[in-house]
Amino acid sequence: MSESDTDGGHGDWRSTTIASVQADHNPEVAAAVERITQLRQSIDNIDAAVIALLAERFKATAQVGWFKAEAGFAPADYQREESQIKRLHRIAEDAGLDPDIAEMYREFVVTETKKRHARIAAAEGDSQVLDVFA
Amino acid sequence: MSESDTDGGHGDWRSTTIASVQADHNPEVAAAVERITQLRQSIDNIDAAVIALLAERFKATAQVGWFKAEAGFAPADYQREESQIKRLHRIAEDAGLDPDIAEMYREFVVTETKKRHARIAAAEGDSQVLDVFA
Repeated sequence: MSESDTDGGHGDWRSTTIASVQADHNPEVAAAVERITQLRQSIDNIDAAVIALLAERFKATAQVGWFKAEAGFAPADYQREESQIKRLHRIAEDAGLDPDIAEMYREFVVTETKKRHARIAAAEGDSQVLDVFA
Repeated sequence: MSESDTDGGHGDWRSTTIASVQADHNPEVAAAVERITQLRQSIDNIDAAVIALLAERFKATAQVGWFKAEAGFAPADYQREESQIKRLHRIAEDAGLDPDIAEMYREFVVTETKKRHARIAAAEGDSQVLDVFA
């Protein structure tokens, strides 16, 4: 990539969104656009993988919900929750992810799982039978 | 409630959490405990995979943030957001996941990305330069 015209008056990009029309006028911007485009493709691929995994996760927790409703197990398992929290924090740290984000992810899926198990238990005629942490 | 009655292989498990002690007295409960244990292992594996992917996603969006801050690109890209929403809904439907959950996932990561990009832009001395949707 050429380093030319880094301070050149090739327009004000601050007020624009990413567009190849700006890249035509400045090789640095062109390089940035190319890298952002590549990164966005990776982000999209990651999202597709996460969505697929979430689909599998909710299938698994739905099954846990049915087994618990059928066997009449108690709603919550705080020991399970405690070990999940510790484990996800450890995995996040190993992966280079802020553990707060791992905790937010856990809360997000647990909240949704809770709602779904409430519906499963209601369908079985006993709203008390929930496994809120699966 | 009461300890599981050992007579006749049935008892009141509604007030208990999953424990092998109940499974010892009833083969049906034993089978449910085994299946739940297996499912929980799958759930834990899925969570580990998602955490690893989220770590990669935030590394990628951080890079997008830096490139945008450097190049002075505008904060938001609503066209990108619109296409992400449509794409994730389609992927969720194909994967058998409630599209609402895909939308909640998107909001969760976008909110966090937004916060991080604000910090990156602040470090570059211009709080206006954010790519809120990466």
